[in-house]
Amino acid sequence: MAEGELVRVAGAHDALGATVAQQAGFQAVWASSFEVSASRCLPDASVLTMTEYLAAAAAMQKAIDIPVVADVDTGYGNALNIAHMVHEYEAAGITAVCMEDKVFPKVNSFAAASHDLLPTEEFARRIRTAKAAQRGEDFYFIARTEALISGLTVQEALERCAAYADAGADAVLIHSKRRDEQEIAEFLAGWDGRRPVVIVPTTYPQLSATDAHKHGASVVIYANQGLRATVQALRDTFSAIVQDGTSLGVEDGIVPVSDIFALQRLDDWLALEA
Amino acid sequence: MAEGELVRVAGAHDALGATVAQQAGFQAVWASSFEVSASRCLPDASVLTMTEYLAAAAAMQKAIDIPVVADVDTGYGNALNIAHMVHEYEAAGITAVCMEDKVFPKVNSFAAASHDLLPTEEFARRIRTAKAAQRGEDFYFIARTEALISGLTVQEALERCAAYADAGADAVLIHSKRRDEQEIAEFLAGWDGRRPVVIVPTTYPQLSATDAHKHGASVVIYANQGLRATVQALRDTFSAIVQDGTSLGVEDGIVPVSDIFALQRLDDWLALEA
Amino acid sequence: MAEGELVRVAGAHDALGATVAQQAGFQAVWASSFEVSASRCLPDASVLTMTEYLAAAAAMQKAIDIPVVADVDTGYGNALNIAHMVHEYEAAGITAVCMEDKVFPKVNSFAAASHDLLPTEEFARRIRTAKAAQRGEDFYFIARTEALISGLTVQEALERCAAYADAGADAVLIHSKRRDEQEIAEFLAGWDGRRPVVIVPTTYPQLSATDAHKHGASVVIYANQGLRATVQALRDTFSAIVQDGTSLGVEDGIVPVSDIFALQRLDDWLALEA
Amino acid sequence: MAEGELVRVAGAHDALGATVAQQAGFQAVWASSFEVSASRCLPDASVLTMTEYLAAAAAMQKAIDIPVVADVDTGYGNALNIAHMVHEYEAAGITAVCMEDKVFPKVNSFAAASHDLLPTEEFARRIRTAKAAQRGEDFYFIARTEALISGLTVQEALERCAAYADAGADAVLIHSKRRDEQEIAEFLAGWDGRRPVVIVPTTYPQLSATDAHKHGASVVIYANQGLRATVQALRDTFSAIVQDGTSLGVEDGIVPVSDIFALQRLDDWLALEA
Repeated sequence: MAEGELVRVAGAHDALGATVAQQAGFQAVWASSFEVSASRCLPDASVLTMTEYLAAAAAMQKAIDIPVVADVDTGYGNALNIAHMVHEYEAAGITAVCMEDKVFPKVNSFAAASHDLLPTEEFARRIRTAKAAQRGEDFYFIARTEALISGLTVQEALERCAAYADAGADAVLIHSKRRDEQEIAEFLAGWDGRRPVVIVPTTYPQLSATDAHKHGASVVIYANQGLRATVQALRDTFSAIVQDGTSLGVEDGIVPVSDIFALQRLDDWLALEA
Repeated sequence: MAEGELVRVAGAHDALGATVAQQAGFQAVWASSFEVSASRCLPDASVLTMTEYLAAAAAMQKAIDIPVVADVDTGYGNALNIAHMVHEYEAAGITAVCMEDKVFPKVNSFAAASHDLLPTEEFARRIRTAKAAQRGEDFYFIARTEALISGLTVQEALERCAAYADAGADAVLIHSKRRDEQEIAEFLAGWDGRRPVVIVPTTYPQLSATDAHKHGASVVIYANQGLRATVQALRDTFSAIVQDGTSLGVEDGIVPVSDIFALQRLDDWLALEA
Repeated sequence: MAEGELVRVAGAHDALGATVAQQAGFQAVWASSFEVSASRCLPDASVLTMTEYLAAAAAMQKAIDIPVVADVDTGYGNALNIAHMVHEYEAAGITAVCMEDKVFPKVNSFAAASHDLLPTEEFARRIRTAKAAQRGEDFYFIARTEALISGLTVQEALERCAAYADAGADAVLIHSKRRDEQEIAEFLAGWDGRRPVVIVPTTYPQLSATDAHKHGASVVIYANQGLRATVQALRDTFSAIVQDGTSLGVEDGIVPVSDIFALQRLDDWLALEA
Repeated sequence: MAEGELVRVAGAHDALGATVAQQAGFQAVWASSFEVSASRCLPDASVLTMTEYLAAAAAMQKAIDIPVVADVDTGYGNALNIAHMVHEYEAAGITAVCMEDKVFPKVNSFAAASHDLLPTEEFARRIRTAKAAQRGEDFYFIARTEALISGLTVQEALERCAAYADAGADAVLIHSKRRDEQEIAEFLAGWDGRRPVVIVPTTYPQLSATDAHKHGASVVIYANQGLRATVQALRDTFSAIVQDGTSLGVEDGIVPVSDIFALQRLDDWLALEA
């Protein structure tokens, strides 16, 4: 990112997904609250605790060499919770988090629910709290605005992001749930570049990474495609086994056991005892 | 099983996989040590702790209505560990476990490594310890022999399973890594039926559930096909996104975000705050 | 309590304290958020997560035969968090919780800080949510009002407790930080007895359990004396060892190692392997 | 220790005990398996898992500025478990561990049970595995021999420790359960000083730190006096409350609530939200 290159990030919820993402060429992994809560079959609505989200992010970071960007939702409460969050994530080896300006408890941005925002000044104050709580030198804080999700204008989103940058955010994330990329393009055109911009083209995949980069985005997060592919694959596989009464029909379309051993680095481990 | 029906079981490592398995029609879920360790990118070699395996199994059980059968490897140590394991699994709502007769720490049955067995009498004693530690009325203990994995004969496997049944096992599991079903068929032909028999046709998928049932098997576990399908799907999806520079090409082949919301029962949860 | 006997409850933060409380004759153990957070040297201010408080409560319940009453603060968020809390506590074997009517995140009642209350109707609604989330038959819900802590009158406290009882609370807890027992006595005199009343005489220890019972209290919680005795003992012991350069001077005033073995039931456990 | 000063270490099982130890003047904290298992009312016999011991050690380290020395028993299994242990402890911020040469699962050294040792060469190999697994620069490995506990001679203990030092141990710990300090003095007299020596005078408290230092010990661990003082204090306090029907009689002998707030640094935390 320092060199102006576009950074591609893949969403994951466990070490396995994070590792496959790294092998596929992504430069970072998004420890998605949506994915982590889905892996538990619980709603993405501040129901799982920081302890559980952190455990998932830390397990991912231990398995990969590229950085995990931890989705920390709203920071789990007030300034005390946010400072504690920074201490705990740093202690667990997580060096990048993304916090959003909604009110705790929040609900997933794509849910048909109200998405109340904190006042700009209040969220800016929380960013300062987070940065002041930082103990190491390398802790990257991304401020995410849900302005467009909650129905505010692009101009208001720009003002929020400017305030967040000035409060110490190392980057800003602008989220949109529109099917077209119009408001994202408008945001990028209006942004003065004081900090890198992160986008999440879940609902507007027609905006390619290359074009997003031309518009001025520095980071693109593919936040949940891995999860959605996993559910599709599980459904197809399990249904076929139940219907066929055997796994014979699915064997050719799935990786062999030896590929799993390779992901586990089994040979390296067994060499320790040899 | 009480009615002589074949029970089909799917391997999983998290609540999401367990839920999809239930929806596909499986009657139980196998909380596979191989899958759980793979989800952490760590070897299936007694490296993860009982705490971690139990947490995974409990998360699955909370999400589904059908029973989780927890793979507890060798029981994590000696008689003390086994009694403690039974206490902890019962307290977490797990009512079925499967313990194998290898020496702790063990390695995955398909790994090219030595697979040392406990003496029959020692493992029988551990089964008695486990059953004596049981506090509730419903705790189903499956004794798994690795006799064929370690190179013993079918006759020796039969003798072990008979001893395990007499020690209190509620069922026996006979594992094989042969590409043909010969030794499994031989085992089933030689078994006197004093307890139900569980099989895991990972390497011999040509043996259908119907045929296995005719041979005398009561339970068939499809132990890791879901995991292997997941890795395939993640590889395909992540590679396509990196190559295409957009998720547009994969969107049609993966479930929509709304399907994830349904798995999370988001509407039910949001109704609580409405 | 069903027989009109006074129930005495001791605060604890781990299985050891809970076990000593049971041995001393208490009828229940209070899994105190103040104690649990203090054991981590973190503030009693909704900073630790539900996961951590539940782990502490569950560890206590596993070690004792008398019930744990879990201090669940404000319920960790909104109605979704409260329903999830009930599911998780029940699944972990906890059958009694106490939830207070302050706003999340809360601060310890004795802290010099503001103690904002939820509107009565809102907390009553949360009680109904909690009771509706209950899955087992035995789940005892204590509604705690912080009315007096936040500066409201005894009359207002009575009205709140009446509303909480009508919403389904199985008991009410009235908290006070006054040095005298005046307002507690006034509350008990004004209460119509529709549900049992719990008191916590931390600041007014001159009110004996016998007298509290005569006033109408059904349960008395000694919420943190064990913790405060522990800190005193640790200070005395550690200081003496540092000053003396030996533990010789403290040995006679502390229990022998064999007493710890007895608390661990070491002989029972070792018998399993004998 | 680098300067030839004696290092005093106090045993603890939670952040509170660790913090009081630091305040009392100890230079390090022993995250004792005996204490941690006792806090759970479970035996010190490899029943708790590495996950649980590590969680306790990490919670202590987060609360204090002096180092935690984690008691990792036998390393929780074979070479794979030991390498994984080193990875996990380092990742959690623990920079010193102490591993003993008994067979997994082990039993507390003071228990009336057999204490089987690994062959010297096997344990030396495990030390090399641990040191090779180390990722950071600062990871201090103490090799503990249970030679005297298991009935071997001082000469055999010396030979084991020499081999362990040569295998890469940064210090050696010699344990004894004798009431007199004879064999410890003999060991120290025979030791060539190639590595610092740690002692644990639980059963021979008459040997002062000063005298131990003169004999050649570099580190003295007071391993469980805090725990034993805690049990004594809890018993006295809980019994008095039950007998008196009030906490009035114990209030003067225990710290006030404000002291607990200070240990929690409550004012510092509340300032974040002010």
